[in-house]
Amino acid sequence: MDTADLSRRALLAFVSTLLASGCAGGMPASRSDPLPSWSEGPARDRIMAFVREVTDPSSAAYVPMGERLAVFDNDGTLWCEQPIYVQAAFIADRIREQASSHPEWSTREPFRAVLAGDRAALAAGGERTLMELVMATHAGMTVEGFSGIAARWIAEARHPRFGRRYTELVYSPMIELMRWLRGLGFGTAIVTGGGVEFVRTFSLPVYGVAREHVVGSSIRTRYQADAPGPRLMREAEIDFIDDKAGKPVGIHRQFGMKPIAAFGNSDGDYEMLEWTTSGTGARLGMIVHHDDAEREYAYDRRSAVGRLDRALDDAASRGWLVASMRRDWRRVFA
Amino acid sequence: MDTADLSRRALLAFVSTLLASGCAGGMPASRSDPLPSWSEGPARDRIMAFVREVTDPSSAAYVPMGERLAVFDNDGTLWCEQPIYVQAAFIADRIREQASSHPEWSTREPFRAVLAGDRAALAAGGERTLMELVMATHAGMTVEGFSGIAARWIAEARHPRFGRRYTELVYSPMIELMRWLRGLGFGTAIVTGGGVEFVRTFSLPVYGVAREHVVGSSIRTRYQADAPGPRLMREAEIDFIDDKAGKPVGIHRQFGMKPIAAFGNSDGDYEMLEWTTSGTGARLGMIVHHDDAEREYAYDRRSAVGRLDRALDDAASRGWLVASMRRDWRRVFA
Repeated sequence: MDTADLSRRALLAFVSTLLASGCAGGMPASRSDPLPSWSEGPARDRIMAFVREVTDPSSAAYVPMGERLAVFDNDGTLWCEQPIYVQAAFIADRIREQASSHPEWSTREPFRAVLAGDRAALAAGGERTLMELVMATHAGMTVEGFSGIAARWIAEARHPRFGRRYTELVYSPMIELMRWLRGLGFGTAIVTGGGVEFVRTFSLPVYGVAREHVVGSSIRTRYQADAPGPRLMREAEIDFIDDKAGKPVGIHRQFGMKPIAAFGNSDGDYEMLEWTTSGTGARLGMIVHHDDAEREYAYDRRSAVGRLDRALDDAASRGWLVASMRRDWRRVFA
Repeated sequence: MDTADLSRRALLAFVSTLLASGCAGGMPASRSDPLPSWSEGPARDRIMAFVREVTDPSSAAYVPMGERLAVFDNDGTLWCEQPIYVQAAFIADRIREQASSHPEWSTREPFRAVLAGDRAALAAGGERTLMELVMATHAGMTVEGFSGIAARWIAEARHPRFGRRYTELVYSPMIELMRWLRGLGFGTAIVTGGGVEFVRTFSLPVYGVAREHVVGSSIRTRYQADAPGPRLMREAEIDFIDDKAGKPVGIHRQFGMKPIAAFGNSDGDYEMLEWTTSGTGARLGMIVHHDDAEREYAYDRRSAVGRLDRALDDAASRGWLVASMRRDWRRVFA
């Protein structure tokens, strides 16, 4: 989004016009429906009206290209988060893989609970348990070392119900929407409560989102220059939790601006939706409502994963669009 | 740098070829020298050889577009940092402006020292003094409130020796280099020990660098949603110091990758240079050496501002290019 990017975008718009009007060949003119996985209806209409409004130079709500930032939660908004968060499945697999070199884990909580598949004990442990497991699996290695481990896992692991790779269980309607927005000069950022380096390992090939456009939770890294050479080490200490009121903080830290559109699915996205849709000008806040047990899952207020309660209560009064997976998505998975 | 950006870049390359070959008009064909402010000589040659090497698809050192990240220190590398850091001048002006509503400052250090122009007392106070002044001038307001104050100041303030706005005292050779690199698909990031939100207020118009490509020191922000409405407040607490070993950490946090080129001018850039130039493939580390008292300033080992000592000692053994302002820059200011 620097001036070079902006002039590049203007040039792209110029070239697109040329291509669409038949003056140049070789690339498909993209006049077809940008959102084929969305059913006809009010949700789709509302999104399209917003996008037209902010991109039409003659509109009162026009937003210049450099200020078109749209933010997307990841778990439950861009990909399937049930029956457990994907990163939780990664952690459990890592604990199992490392168990042979940690015999003490067979009796030490919370490792014992993971190895025994004791979900009740894990749930009872709460955030502290989770942090202990994160540190045991995410720290004590270089940043490249961690990325390699995460990338290998994500290339192999399969979803317990669908039997497909997790990266195949991304939502087609959201992928289309992000691609369409980028084509219109939007920045599309992922803002996840999950680990930023975990999501960065697949954000570009899976979502078309560059690593620098992923904001997430993190542990501290420390620069070391002694043998075996300059490196960033991942330390067993929380740096930032990118959830709830942390999401606006994380977005501003990364981009130095407020988005004009936000997409979420749980109460963890409440503050991001609230902040994004406050202030002047056209703004869009959208919640993906998981109400499709047949094609995916149906859950909201009582779910431990992706709980949606307060944001669902307040959606109408705050003008947030609630998109029904069952009704508004013609196709779920990409 | 997402897939949309990458295809946009490919398209730009295609269109540039069209324009250069005369098939379309309206834009200047940029076949002229990309670095006119650099004198002929080894510094310029080395930079150009590096850039050719990493952008030529037939070269063994070729680097794909999405991985071309170049990082630039700000103070003393992109603009003049003498006789005091620009942000220090901002702080002093803010203290003077607010003094009438703080009568206690006339006797309370370090405010008294600022108001009396007592540089010896300020220097003796060290980092703690600086932090106290930063907090008094940078915290307790919304992020937009601070940006407005900083933007108004930078539009007005003048350099004590040159009588020009600080944003006019940016280095022409470095601006040309950044612009050239962006045109070749590089990301150009500013990595400053100064405040990230201070630099973001002018990075796009002055350097062509988007706010999201500025990494810097920061104080904590906190999201608040009570009256008068959703906002990010700047708090009187350090969040991150983007200097020395903090620079590699800050770069990785923002971009999730290691740069292939780094430009600095002081020992505060040592670790950024060291990290960037470590590892495989072609890498460039460059130090701007201020040895031109006539056109700008001459300082290195004994300067309190922008001290260059250890990095100068190690430049030769580490293969870092030392660019002499006097010898290698035909023109200093843009």
